[in-house]
Amino acid sequence: MRQHASLSEPRPVFTAPISTLIALDRKSGIPLYRQICQSLREAILSGELAEGARLPTERALASELGINRTTVMNAYNELASEGLIEGHVGRGTLVRRNHYSYDVDAYEPETASWLLGLPAGEREALGPDAHLLSELASMSDRKEIISLAPGTPATDLLPAEMLRSVFADELLDARQTALGYCPVEGLQSLRRNIAGRMRARGVVVDTPHILILSGSTQGIGLVGRFLLNPGDEVVVEVPTYLGAIQTFRALNARVIGVPTDNEGMRVDLLESILARHRPRLIYTQPTFQNPTGAVMSQERRRRLLLLARRYQTPILEDDPYGEIYFEGKQPQPLKAMDSGGQVIYLSTYSKTLAPGLRVAWLAAPEPMIERLTLHKQVFDLNTNALGQWAVSEVLRRGLLDDHLGMLRQVYRRKRDLMLAAIAGYWPREVRVNAPVGGFHLWCRLPGDVRARALLREVAGEWVAFVIGEPFHVDGGGQQNLRLSFAFPEERHIEEGIKRIGSAIKRLQSRRNTRKEQGKQPVEHIPMV
Amino acid sequence: MRQHASLSEPRPVFTAPISTLIALDRKSGIPLYRQICQSLREAILSGELAEGARLPTERALASELGINRTTVMNAYNELASEGLIEGHVGRGTLVRRNHYSYDVDAYEPETASWLLGLPAGEREALGPDAHLLSELASMSDRKEIISLAPGTPATDLLPAEMLRSVFADELLDARQTALGYCPVEGLQSLRRNIAGRMRARGVVVDTPHILILSGSTQGIGLVGRFLLNPGDEVVVEVPTYLGAIQTFRALNARVIGVPTDNEGMRVDLLESILARHRPRLIYTQPTFQNPTGAVMSQERRRRLLLLARRYQTPILEDDPYGEIYFEGKQPQPLKAMDSGGQVIYLSTYSKTLAPGLRVAWLAAPEPMIERLTLHKQVFDLNTNALGQWAVSEVLRRGLLDDHLGMLRQVYRRKRDLMLAAIAGYWPREVRVNAPVGGFHLWCRLPGDVRARALLREVAGEWVAFVIGEPFHVDGGGQQNLRLSFAFPEERHIEEGIKRIGSAIKRLQSRRNTRKEQGKQPVEHIPMV
Repeated sequence: MRQHASLSEPRPVFTAPISTLIALDRKSGIPLYRQICQSLREAILSGELAEGARLPTERALASELGINRTTVMNAYNELASEGLIEGHVGRGTLVRRNHYSYDVDAYEPETASWLLGLPAGEREALGPDAHLLSELASMSDRKEIISLAPGTPATDLLPAEMLRSVFADELLDARQTALGYCPVEGLQSLRRNIAGRMRARGVVVDTPHILILSGSTQGIGLVGRFLLNPGDEVVVEVPTYLGAIQTFRALNARVIGVPTDNEGMRVDLLESILARHRPRLIYTQPTFQNPTGAVMSQERRRRLLLLARRYQTPILEDDPYGEIYFEGKQPQPLKAMDSGGQVIYLSTYSKTLAPGLRVAWLAAPEPMIERLTLHKQVFDLNTNALGQWAVSEVLRRGLLDDHLGMLRQVYRRKRDLMLAAIAGYWPREVRVNAPVGGFHLWCRLPGDVRARALLREVAGEWVAFVIGEPFHVDGGGQQNLRLSFAFPEERHIEEGIKRIGSAIKRLQSRRNTRKEQGKQPVEHIPMV
Repeated sequence: MRQHASLSEPRPVFTAPISTLIALDRKSGIPLYRQICQSLREAILSGELAEGARLPTERALASELGINRTTVMNAYNELASEGLIEGHVGRGTLVRRNHYSYDVDAYEPETASWLLGLPAGEREALGPDAHLLSELASMSDRKEIISLAPGTPATDLLPAEMLRSVFADELLDARQTALGYCPVEGLQSLRRNIAGRMRARGVVVDTPHILILSGSTQGIGLVGRFLLNPGDEVVVEVPTYLGAIQTFRALNARVIGVPTDNEGMRVDLLESILARHRPRLIYTQPTFQNPTGAVMSQERRRRLLLLARRYQTPILEDDPYGEIYFEGKQPQPLKAMDSGGQVIYLSTYSKTLAPGLRVAWLAAPEPMIERLTLHKQVFDLNTNALGQWAVSEVLRRGLLDDHLGMLRQVYRRKRDLMLAAIAGYWPREVRVNAPVGGFHLWCRLPGDVRARALLREVAGEWVAFVIGEPFHVDGGGQQNLRLSFAFPEERHIEEGIKRIGSAIKRLQSRRNTRKEQGKQPVEHIPMV
């Protein structure tokens, strides 16, 4: 565990032999030179190895670590290509000065590291996977990884050209609107435009029903804080968006799971939960659910609304992916059927435009918007005007629909590429959904193969995905994994799937070998 | 009180005579035509008066209201000039269709209105002036007002040109960094640059000690949530930043005031508070305090740190204005003297660049940053990347220092203009500080003139400022007002001060008249 330097004590300079910084795990499946790279990269970026510090010669380090000199050479070459170290005539290999100026944001230090300093109680309150989201977020910066993990738009689809032209044409005239403070509820023009677009999707709302948020996580937090006291119960789907689980747990709510199938939430199982627990809130993603991609059937939507009304339980409908559909016409939000005013609707421009804008919104009855506004105000005053204004301009110029049309085509093609690669390279026993919208495939591994073991197996080949457990509040998901077809480059999809497929086969064959040898498989869990 | 339409019930169309929408208060001092404007403007913007609705003729409305026809004419002319109504041959005066398309964000509906729907308990928990901040924020949009209220940069000093050129030159190459998700702690390059700038101001910090925030209000909320349980006590200066009071109260903390004078917090009175109350946090603005502009003396800073250390009480130093100094060299933060690690430092780019970017930061010991990061993550995932990246580019290109140099010159000139106007137009009994930095003048009215009465008196002449009470946790401030010299245009400063001066004199002479007539002054409060 890393020591934390306090502000008053300067971080001690590292003086022990550099080989002590490197812990090699020969069983991990990760090539040794990668492990060396990783240890030294962390030591350099954290400052433990100071700028200008001298590294041992390849021969010396190889001897200290008891490994081949070529392995050290490979590691040093890699670090040099990243701009972290360099050779100097007469002085050997040094940690480069100003290494940060070389594309620094491509080398964010592992953001998960902050979890280490936390007392266990606090870690637990936030859920065991509190760090996963920021790991995913920072992972999108790691260019060497084929990442099928982040639920974020592909880099080349982020609308930089569109926004640049909005800024170029309009920023000087919109100085106060784009750069000043804006009302807590959000920019009036944006709220009005959003209300108009929602009406076009069948939802009866107007400007006063819209509250602009700094990302939809803020919406889950605000609604949760508004409706839930510590110990109150909230119903979520199993599996569901892990950020929602985290936020509800951070509010000390008790999170109750309802199973799902390919028509979304098992509403037939909901009534007994409502009757028994009297939860204060139902959280659902009825359209292109994250992670399963499922769309809740019309019949279930009707029944869900009926139950919510009967038990007077508000529903938080989270709809980040509703505009990313691949077949037929656009699905309506659950809120379009909400004649009883039970549904609080939440969506975001993080998937359709850019997460870096941090512009999302809630639609709810006016008195609720008013109260949530008060709560938002005392915690972040208002959402950034620049992002709101940029989105508002994109809407005003009518640029969003073309952009969405393009996204649907590209993401649909990527989904098809990924499904085709899976059909070609994976064992047939893996079960995979074929979603008609959203960003993700949801897979179930066969027999006794666990996703965690698979992730470890492919990490050495620089492929990443998300394991199923953090999406589950019931302890399940060990054999599930979520693949993002939206984020990776098209040219990487087949290769990534291929590597995962080989890894699955390796795991299967190792298990079979062990079974033949009569050994108990180490990671066997009974099928439920 | 306005009725709230629920989402399921469409807002009823207004059918009663339009005169019932207008409540005239002949004693308010606000010209009647302005009152009519205000009522109709609200009704139109709220949708109560639908687009296309016909207004009565001037004659008819004048007769219904029992007022002069010219008054109605003036009101109608004003609304027409705002693009809200228009005359149609053969159809009379109609509420304009698409009136929103006319510079809509200049006519944000009164954001304070949401306060009306709140139950009294909730309103109280958030403090009696919960709405003030958003009123100030939205006020900066009201072009017809000479506003000396908002503590925000002048519109023409918002760096639109600088940002436009950053976007034009770099946005396409920085696609993922500027538009993708970024780590919860903030963009690495920005954190590093901020740490470097703080070191140049004498503070020993490095990248891991910096947490980027979505505005400094978020920092007060995070630190408050981290350190304070409901009922815990927090010490603030009297007067102090009203947003801090609101946030601490929203966390159900008990807020204890320490008096201030022209050397800042009366640290000599602090020890007995620390001994008696054992507060969990001391909140201070040692440099160019909002609202008083005071700079805490070196001697008091030393003593404050000593006491905080002795009583093991952390200090939250809020330093939004430290870089806006007018004389001598830049004052150091309190944190520069903090050898004991007692000080959590908070600052923002809202005053020095633009509030619409929503980029602020905390500097604190690393373990604390790690925990605050966790809390931030579950509530808003991360701060908008676009604003962070833009600030980071401004810093990388070395543009900030020139910009700050320019700001110091302009704001100093505006301060001098305002002080000169006060010397010329105000009664000599008004006491006014002459701050050497920051955005504000802090004034104390003479004798029995109350700031609230003065605000009412000048509102009819479209001048605004902030009254002293919301900055006070001790019930004081009735005779204080805060004037922003930063926000108003230079050409408006003299006129605004002149109008306030006349209003003070009118109030004084009315009081004298009443006194001569032997009446008890209505708003007399005893001098303390």
